[in-house]
Amino acid sequence: MQTDILITDTLLFPAPGEDTLLPNSFIRIRDSHIVETGPMEALTDQEARTIIDGRGCLAMPGLVNGHCHGAMTLFRGLADDLDLATWLTEHIFPAEARAVTPEMVFWCTTLAAAEMLLAGITTVADGYFHEHEAARAFAGCGIRAVAAQGVIDFPAPGVPDPADNISAAARFLDEWQNHPLVTPAIFAHSPYTCSPETLIRARELARQRNAPFFIHLAETAGEQEQIMDPRGSSPVRHLEALGLLDAMTVCIHCVWVDREDLDILARTGAQVVTCPRSNLKLGSGLAPVTDMLTRDIPVGLGSDSAASNNVLDLFAEMDCLAKIQKIRRRDPVAIPAARILELATTPLLSHRSGPGGRLEPGQVADLILMDLDRPHLRPFYDPNLLVYAARGVVSGT
Amino acid sequence: MQTDILITDTLLFPAPGEDTLLPNSFIRIRDSHIVETGPMEALTDQEARTIIDGRGCLAMPGLVNGHCHGAMTLFRGLADDLDLATWLTEHIFPAEARAVTPEMVFWCTTLAAAEMLLAGITTVADGYFHEHEAARAFAGCGIRAVAAQGVIDFPAPGVPDPADNISAAARFLDEWQNHPLVTPAIFAHSPYTCSPETLIRARELARQRNAPFFIHLAETAGEQEQIMDPRGSSPVRHLEALGLLDAMTVCIHCVWVDREDLDILARTGAQVVTCPRSNLKLGSGLAPVTDMLTRDIPVGLGSDSAASNNVLDLFAEMDCLAKIQKIRRRDPVAIPAARILELATTPLLSHRSGPGGRLEPGQVADLILMDLDRPHLRPFYDPNLLVYAARGVVSGT
Repeated sequence: MQTDILITDTLLFPAPGEDTLLPNSFIRIRDSHIVETGPMEALTDQEARTIIDGRGCLAMPGLVNGHCHGAMTLFRGLADDLDLATWLTEHIFPAEARAVTPEMVFWCTTLAAAEMLLAGITTVADGYFHEHEAARAFAGCGIRAVAAQGVIDFPAPGVPDPADNISAAARFLDEWQNHPLVTPAIFAHSPYTCSPETLIRARELARQRNAPFFIHLAETAGEQEQIMDPRGSSPVRHLEALGLLDAMTVCIHCVWVDREDLDILARTGAQVVTCPRSNLKLGSGLAPVTDMLTRDIPVGLGSDSAASNNVLDLFAEMDCLAKIQKIRRRDPVAIPAARILELATTPLLSHRSGPGGRLEPGQVADLILMDLDRPHLRPFYDPNLLVYAARGVVSGT
Repeated sequence: MQTDILITDTLLFPAPGEDTLLPNSFIRIRDSHIVETGPMEALTDQEARTIIDGRGCLAMPGLVNGHCHGAMTLFRGLADDLDLATWLTEHIFPAEARAVTPEMVFWCTTLAAAEMLLAGITTVADGYFHEHEAARAFAGCGIRAVAAQGVIDFPAPGVPDPADNISAAARFLDEWQNHPLVTPAIFAHSPYTCSPETLIRARELARQRNAPFFIHLAETAGEQEQIMDPRGSSPVRHLEALGLLDAMTVCIHCVWVDREDLDILARTGAQVVTCPRSNLKLGSGLAPVTDMLTRDIPVGLGSDSAASNNVLDLFAEMDCLAKIQKIRRRDPVAIPAARILELATTPLLSHRSGPGGRLEPGQVADLILMDLDRPHLRPFYDPNLLVYAARGVVSGT
């Protein structure tokens, strides 16, 4: 059988989280899947449609951006050095009211996809409005995406009447069923912008279609006071009281969660996505990620939007997460770098479908080649350097 | 008169700290100095030895790395996720005992200089042993350097007998007098590795030669307990009691300083260099930089060594400093991005010699061109993006 892509003579890093580095390796890819890996001396069939010389490069699983609003690249650097409430209500919401059109979503999401692919991200979980256009952009760029249509209880781009927000989401789920790259999903903005009724209806719709359900949760210290009709004594307990939490729920941020909240998340099987750079930039706080990991809560890493970060670079998120957890715990070993590499390369919701994020036969070939022949990556003793020195974005100097 | 370099049609950002952006500008350079800037329509003499097309680029002052140990790039990623004491005594000091030779210092400092120049750093303050070799490397690479010979009270590379540490430093100062790129200086390692007598003698030597004097200070919470023969109740008060602090003293780190310490630093005119990423990586803490700026203490930014960071990238330091000060103060405007750009581009000890760090006639032409035509720098509304999105290092993916 024909080989589509053959990568030769590369340094294979098959499983972030483990230390194994296999020099002088090849990777054979057919129908977008890895079909064979091994040392160069075991390479018999050297025919392939495309051969990539991997000398000087490290091959590793692509990074998974667990939270993004791709279209918001238009607002990158539009308003900095503000708290979440001022930033959202005085700058971002008005800019969205002026600027968001289907065309804007398509082109700005395309810009985000270009930035992410250049930065080694092969899967992104995105949430926005006109998400059909975002999904078109991701599919066109060839990046794997969980694309989630936004649900919010006020007039939104493409959904001028909030009464239509659930039906708009339902149409979006229908349109993208069974796409090879795009998994459609629902993204309820937050408990402070969605009523309990809206949250319950959105969650129910996602359950009916077996779609992932995303929500911003416990991002700032003041969120509890802003929740619409609170049914619990914390954002997490509010969601639990509404029956929203299960293994298909992805809670974004979870900065302000106490022990009981963490126990609830662990018990319900919900996943958390932490966005350390966005939380720092908006002054929101440091999420207790070490405590989540202790409880075996599945944790992913996200960039959030370029408007609050201001880059879509999972290497920068890994580095930031490692460093701030050390400070939060006053412990330089708070989360070992290898564990962070694992979090950043494990597919979202993989706790439902197996490990993934490994370069081995049978896995999809979502992999990246990193050129190690750069001053800032020399010497290369250990894959830890991928957390502490590698960067996704390409310098402009 | 002949123009050496003419940069045409660039976006001129003449003074970080101010908002001015001048599109379609030219910069004329002669004898390593800026002799003229202006809008393209005012460009009359278009002759130059070298013409650089600046379209799509932003021209700004080069970045100043206020603290580095260039030779330690050899130890990049050698030992991660450890506290300062374990890292130093169990990993770095033994590695240095094995590996540090004059040749190692020359070549590893050359690697550091390459990394820094590619990352837009045009001045570095370096401190190590065999510093003559480091100074040779910097001069050879064309990077401006304040190169400081290390002083420490135990056997060190090139200074096997600590009794010779001051005379070795004196020889180094003599060798590099009046070099156009290299300013020789003294770097006393710390109050926990140098006795009061050594510190006093090193400071006295620096004063005699009008050389800058560097010292690691108040890096960890436990430093006070480790000080050799303490003469004050804190690392800063120890140095003040010894008469070490004045406007030619640069104190590196100052993470653990109280109000009295800050008042002493302000009164004596000492400069602080903060190394946020190194302090996070070693779990040391968050320096109270906002409180230093309130007291008009001159603050610079440093990468520290690649062994504790693990990159020499001032763009990453700016981003990190901005974000962690927001968290430390629970205030998203803790230090405006423009102020951070100013800190990172102001020459070290410029409080003794004027502002510098500006692109205007009469200034040395220590400038960089940043290519803005990259996905992660689009759109570009504001120079804040240089703090929150730009990166020095070049991606490997």
